[in-house]
Amino acid sequence: MERRQSDGPGQTRRSHGCKQRFEAERGGPAIACSPTPISRLLGSESEPDQAAHCTDGEERGPRRHPGCWKMLTVAMCMALLGCLQAQELRGHVSVILLGATGDLARKYLWQGLFQLYLDEAGKDYSFSFHGAALTSTKQGQAFIAKVLESLSCPEDVAPDRCAELKGQFQRLSAYRHLATSEDYMALSKDIEAQVQHGGLREAGRIFYFSVPPFAYADIARNINSSCRPGPGAWLRVVLEKPFGHDHLSAQQLATELGGFFREEEMYRVDHYLGKQAVAQILPFRDQNRKALDGLWSRHHVERVEIIMKETVDAEGRTSFYEEYGVIRDVLQNHLTEVLTLVAMELPHNISSSESVLQHKLRAFRALRGLQKGSAVLGQYQAYSEQVRREQQKPDSFRSLTPTFAGVLVHMDNLRWEGVPFILMSGKALDERVGYVRILFRNQAYCVQNDEHWVADQSQCLPRQIVFYIGHGELGSPAVLVSRNLFRPSLPSESWKGLGARPGLRLFGRPLSDFYAYRPVREQDAYSVLISRIFHGRKDSFVTTENLLASWGFWTPLLDSLAHEVPRLYPGGAENGHLLDFEFSGAQLYFSQRQPERLVPGPGPAPMPSGFQVLKAKYRESPLISAWPEELIAKLADDIEATAVRAVRRFGTFHLALSGGSSPVPLFQQLATRHYGFPWAHTHLWLVDERCVPLWDPESNFQHLQTHLLQHVRVPYYNIHPMPVHLHQRLCAEEDQGAQTYASEISALVANSSFDLVLLGMGADGHTASLFPQSPSGLDGEQLVVLTESPSRPFQRMSLSLPLINRARKVAVLVMGRVKREITMLVSRVGHEPKKWPISGVLPSSGQLVWYMDYEAFLG
Amino acid sequence: MERRQSDGPGQTRRSHGCKQRFEAERGGPAIACSPTPISRLLGSESEPDQAAHCTDGEERGPRRHPGCWKMLTVAMCMALLGCLQAQELRGHVSVILLGATGDLARKYLWQGLFQLYLDEAGKDYSFSFHGAALTSTKQGQAFIAKVLESLSCPEDVAPDRCAELKGQFQRLSAYRHLATSEDYMALSKDIEAQVQHGGLREAGRIFYFSVPPFAYADIARNINSSCRPGPGAWLRVVLEKPFGHDHLSAQQLATELGGFFREEEMYRVDHYLGKQAVAQILPFRDQNRKALDGLWSRHHVERVEIIMKETVDAEGRTSFYEEYGVIRDVLQNHLTEVLTLVAMELPHNISSSESVLQHKLRAFRALRGLQKGSAVLGQYQAYSEQVRREQQKPDSFRSLTPTFAGVLVHMDNLRWEGVPFILMSGKALDERVGYVRILFRNQAYCVQNDEHWVADQSQCLPRQIVFYIGHGELGSPAVLVSRNLFRPSLPSESWKGLGARPGLRLFGRPLSDFYAYRPVREQDAYSVLISRIFHGRKDSFVTTENLLASWGFWTPLLDSLAHEVPRLYPGGAENGHLLDFEFSGAQLYFSQRQPERLVPGPGPAPMPSGFQVLKAKYRESPLISAWPEELIAKLADDIEATAVRAVRRFGTFHLALSGGSSPVPLFQQLATRHYGFPWAHTHLWLVDERCVPLWDPESNFQHLQTHLLQHVRVPYYNIHPMPVHLHQRLCAEEDQGAQTYASEISALVANSSFDLVLLGMGADGHTASLFPQSPSGLDGEQLVVLTESPSRPFQRMSLSLPLINRARKVAVLVMGRVKREITMLVSRVGHEPKKWPISGVLPSSGQLVWYMDYEAFLG
Repeated sequence: MERRQSDGPGQTRRSHGCKQRFEAERGGPAIACSPTPISRLLGSESEPDQAAHCTDGEERGPRRHPGCWKMLTVAMCMALLGCLQAQELRGHVSVILLGATGDLARKYLWQGLFQLYLDEAGKDYSFSFHGAALTSTKQGQAFIAKVLESLSCPEDVAPDRCAELKGQFQRLSAYRHLATSEDYMALSKDIEAQVQHGGLREAGRIFYFSVPPFAYADIARNINSSCRPGPGAWLRVVLEKPFGHDHLSAQQLATELGGFFREEEMYRVDHYLGKQAVAQILPFRDQNRKALDGLWSRHHVERVEIIMKETVDAEGRTSFYEEYGVIRDVLQNHLTEVLTLVAMELPHNISSSESVLQHKLRAFRALRGLQKGSAVLGQYQAYSEQVRREQQKPDSFRSLTPTFAGVLVHMDNLRWEGVPFILMSGKALDERVGYVRILFRNQAYCVQNDEHWVADQSQCLPRQIVFYIGHGELGSPAVLVSRNLFRPSLPSESWKGLGARPGLRLFGRPLSDFYAYRPVREQDAYSVLISRIFHGRKDSFVTTENLLASWGFWTPLLDSLAHEVPRLYPGGAENGHLLDFEFSGAQLYFSQRQPERLVPGPGPAPMPSGFQVLKAKYRESPLISAWPEELIAKLADDIEATAVRAVRRFGTFHLALSGGSSPVPLFQQLATRHYGFPWAHTHLWLVDERCVPLWDPESNFQHLQTHLLQHVRVPYYNIHPMPVHLHQRLCAEEDQGAQTYASEISALVANSSFDLVLLGMGADGHTASLFPQSPSGLDGEQLVVLTESPSRPFQRMSLSLPLINRARKVAVLVMGRVKREITMLVSRVGHEPKKWPISGVLPSSGQLVWYMDYEAFLG
Repeated sequence: MERRQSDGPGQTRRSHGCKQRFEAERGGPAIACSPTPISRLLGSESEPDQAAHCTDGEERGPRRHPGCWKMLTVAMCMALLGCLQAQELRGHVSVILLGATGDLARKYLWQGLFQLYLDEAGKDYSFSFHGAALTSTKQGQAFIAKVLESLSCPEDVAPDRCAELKGQFQRLSAYRHLATSEDYMALSKDIEAQVQHGGLREAGRIFYFSVPPFAYADIARNINSSCRPGPGAWLRVVLEKPFGHDHLSAQQLATELGGFFREEEMYRVDHYLGKQAVAQILPFRDQNRKALDGLWSRHHVERVEIIMKETVDAEGRTSFYEEYGVIRDVLQNHLTEVLTLVAMELPHNISSSESVLQHKLRAFRALRGLQKGSAVLGQYQAYSEQVRREQQKPDSFRSLTPTFAGVLVHMDNLRWEGVPFILMSGKALDERVGYVRILFRNQAYCVQNDEHWVADQSQCLPRQIVFYIGHGELGSPAVLVSRNLFRPSLPSESWKGLGARPGLRLFGRPLSDFYAYRPVREQDAYSVLISRIFHGRKDSFVTTENLLASWGFWTPLLDSLAHEVPRLYPGGAENGHLLDFEFSGAQLYFSQRQPERLVPGPGPAPMPSGFQVLKAKYRESPLISAWPEELIAKLADDIEATAVRAVRRFGTFHLALSGGSSPVPLFQQLATRHYGFPWAHTHLWLVDERCVPLWDPESNFQHLQTHLLQHVRVPYYNIHPMPVHLHQRLCAEEDQGAQTYASEISALVANSSFDLVLLGMGADGHTASLFPQSPSGLDGEQLVVLTESPSRPFQRMSLSLPLINRARKVAVLVMGRVKREITMLVSRVGHEPKKWPISGVLPSSGQLVWYMDYEAFLG
């Protein structure tokens, strides 16, 4: 044991040495990662879960199974025994830092590698560190030497000892010029020689790509072809963002890399995952499982804010920034990673990387798609000028690249449905701060006047959990939990209580309102991540699947925003309330309307009453014409009025709705704005249907389901889809679907007179699914008919003209310029349903009303 | 015109005289009430709505139609003309105050009548006021004289003038002893004589019942039989609460009164409706219709608080209070009236009493029924002692009467679904205050640090509208609107801006954060209401329908709480947080658990993990036994796990559910606690169904719909109710419903093997709808069968035993002591499905698990 002291800094932690060795042999981070071998050591396979709960690899929370420590002790001793027996197999790890002279390497990576050396070297591992770049060897060596001198030791290491440790680290570090495959081959040989010479076993190689993405392919090819370790040793390549520019480019890059490396070999860094507060999210959820169980859902969470504010701007970096913008730079990666950690279902065993990654992927799948209206964009005023200057653009150049974005994200699952996740980041803002804030709903009423409220007792004061990522008024990472929520459990060896800071208010409350914790030792994100790479903790990195899921989520938004003009903001505190934004449903808009805008911007639609609705006649029936939005509003109002009257008179309202896309805005209007609609007494019928299964996206019923039924409460048995799909066949004559529907109508609708039938008009003059080419349904006794459409799917089911004409009221909705011609034509023709089925619509004793937008009516 | 000056106080307002006259002739309050006559005067019927918007009878807001004043001026001049022509028809109104010497009369009513006289007498009306009681005439006269002397004039009336006016009023007021029908007859004769003598026309009689309810019937009988005015004149009887004690007694009282008076003759007073801030709710909603339109709904309102806090206790009034308690005393009437004003759909024309009352009634109908868990009750500590003292009760007496109540109300309509309406009132609290507070949801994100937020710009500061009813820190009625909401419109002649009150904070914000208004002239509620009685404004009173609707709403709660022990509270500021309450779903509970409680109280259920789940064998299959709550939790967990596995493996999960009441808690558990359940991929089938329409409350499907489908998102076409109702017949053999269901199963469920079948077990050993008495479905080829039940409804449809036994997993849920015997029996029998169909459940290649609660299993 003595000999090892000279190998590295491990002597103070000797008793743990064999644990690490044991882990390393299993190629995993901690005993917990795959518990079976441990239980096998114990001669028992029965309780693997128990062992798995003993430790989470890095942080330790309260134990649920006190008995398991005993097991572990036995296991570790046996491992220790193995350790001593297999002394000659001590592993060697080579770390090759590519781009070793770059910014990132200088600032964070060398320091992180030094930390890795301090933490891990000595007992079971030896290391060699290779700084590589395209710089000439001499220059590079000089550079590296300078960087290494600037390394710092942890606070608790005495200066002498620090110098000693740095000396050891420097002796293990060397610069090499890596350009050709020969260079890589030489490196590989050198490593092998070093391993052999030291009487070691090669454990693995870490290649850290701190180089621009365009250099990836060459390096990857060289590593794969010329620098893989031999059998039994692992290869880990560490990649830095950007990982593409959109879904397609990310996929191409991933495919390219996939040609050189296996998935488990790739470690894509999102340094946010190494931030201590972010890394604590899952452990916090796990260690406070019981308290959070009843809180972590839409029933209790009012909103989640995931925020990264910067004061700096993009000056000096515009050539990069202009290509990316804030969404690609921050939201797609950092904030989305954080989002999934908050939103994902919590795995039973959070120390299982695989399980964490799977749950994360499921969270991605639950994200509701973003649309243009899901985001607000800003750009600080000086940005375009900076781009012009830095990139020699003409004076007329104006950039559309956003430097500020607020995005509203929703999850389509039962836990989070309806809860707004607000993602926001921007440059040139009033402060530098990053945080995740989970605000809980106030579901209490406090009887006393609020001046008597006590912070840890009043349930009416804000209740929040904040993972404070850093900077801001607090100046350090922290975890904050409102005192009226619960007293959280945090691992005391890594988190400690935050001292009092009188006068400091955070999120609207004095700091004293929170249980507040900060890390015992602040660690740089890269140090954390380099350690996790070494321990093979894949869940702290972005897998290909997760990466593509994220780009799949963001790319449609980025595409739809490509030509959006961001709101300009002055920068800093001067922004005032200019960038504040609000949401309504899934729509996001700036709270302050931009005064210079002439056309109505995003935000609540103007009230229909502000417009004039034109009333006239068309084919001798009343015509209502307006702009689309007001037309839909008017139609929805009229339908509601008809419904209320019908329910008052008859107890029910029978409404038959047409398919197609025109009624979709109507459905949305009815779903979201008509609170008084008597849905519980409304029967919904279909005017026509395509012969596809009801769940087919082409089905008219699907539109109805998605845009209306999802949002209102129509009893199941009041919904009457057309029976186009019987006995697993579509519209087979012998299944008598049309007859079945007809008799259902006869049975439920008095006199087979619908209270309201909503029709459309096709450019060929068809209505319902009654087409000029197809004679059926235009006259005769049949109430419901099968018809032929000129376009796919050809087979249709439709109410017949005679049935339609029995209705008390028929509304025909016609919208869009494309209808202009047929509108003109039909205005002049007589009763010729065989040529123009729409001309046969004439309720025998009911009312016909035409609703046309100006484009359809006036062209 | 000169002559009239001596008739009353009208001369200073002479120019308005004829307007009043005009109103009186129409028997209504204001020109606006029925606009047609006005437009008829103008020779136009085309724009009645426009005239209707000109005035709302009492308060005047900003006009939308400036042109209408011209119309009104013309109309009023023509009315004036008629006025002069019809001088001889001046009307006389007699007001008979019954209980004229009582508390209420002394404190409010005489003053209110004096105000009525000041406002209305002179030009078009003459008055006589009759104070009546059972007191001897002499005593009564003396008493009245004393009361009248204490009357006060409005602030702007000079003392001399005040004395003159009081003199006039006193000359018109007289005391009479009213006991027998002869007394009433005499009164009637005197009125007639007075009218005749004055050359007047009798306009109407107001009887104000300021007497205890037990006296109502006699008085009503006497009025009806002996004191009705002649034809052409109206009768209005004014009734004071209590209007019964519950739904039944209220109905009896209403029926009794209905024998004497027509509905339109009765004016039930809820004096809250006369409070200026309450009376302003509808006008405010009307005058700010445009701003509120987008805000007044579940999409924007976070909660509504309707609060009446008192500092006084019930000392001296316990004989009344002990019979009523706070819910009957305050919530059932005052707070409920306010609730309907806030929640009702806003009528187009709020000056139409009829329309307002109808909309109010609809709001009542939308109230979701209350349950025991909807309320928390308290009683101040001294109360029982006060009752003992005042009512000579024994020392052992403890009252259960609540002096504090918090109630959570929900509305079942699309406007308010999910919005908590919190009603709270109590005695012996820390302050006296009444208010309605509408708190809007924060749907904004404010980018700047909160120290920079500006009250009228930041959408992140609380946004609220408060109708401050009175008292409290403000000390007067007020209407408050957060400045970041909108600048409200209030009628400037009756509401004025509230001056600055530095340092005053209301609802968590400084007063300066609000647009704040107070009445120009503070008016007592009774003065307001007496004026409204005179003007026939029925909407300020409680109609029989509304009264019964309110009792119908409150009575079930009162019944269920009858034996509930209220939480004791010390009273005043000492209450601390003891009475704070919280809600979760529809359940309300005190935030602080009562330390002295030994059994778990209301509030979140204890976690199942806290209990032991017993695992054993039953009929050689695994048995899980536990207390009901944990059993259901375990079963729900197991179902979810099965579902997740099935969806992962096959893409879908086919679940067949039994009917009956046992699964209801399971449905609720699944609906509210299982966020990860893959509903979108789940197909729901029925194990059995009663031959009733699906919408019948007896239908198994109805249970499923109410307790599960309402709350989760299962696609329409994944729901498979049994086709028991085809061709408008129930379970007719020839409709082949069973065969249809069987082929649906065969088509969609691979190998017709459900992933999970949930069964129950009847006390006779039946399962599904397979009964011992009925042979069908126990064996053979049929997958789905029609069966006969021994109890109604006799006809059933059921999966057959062979189909059930094809399932991958079968769970049998057995709960309750009533199942103990059959559980014992079945544990001993072999495979005898003909005797005990449950014994035939044995999946051929699947798993069978029994879930029994301790009562069913252990007795």
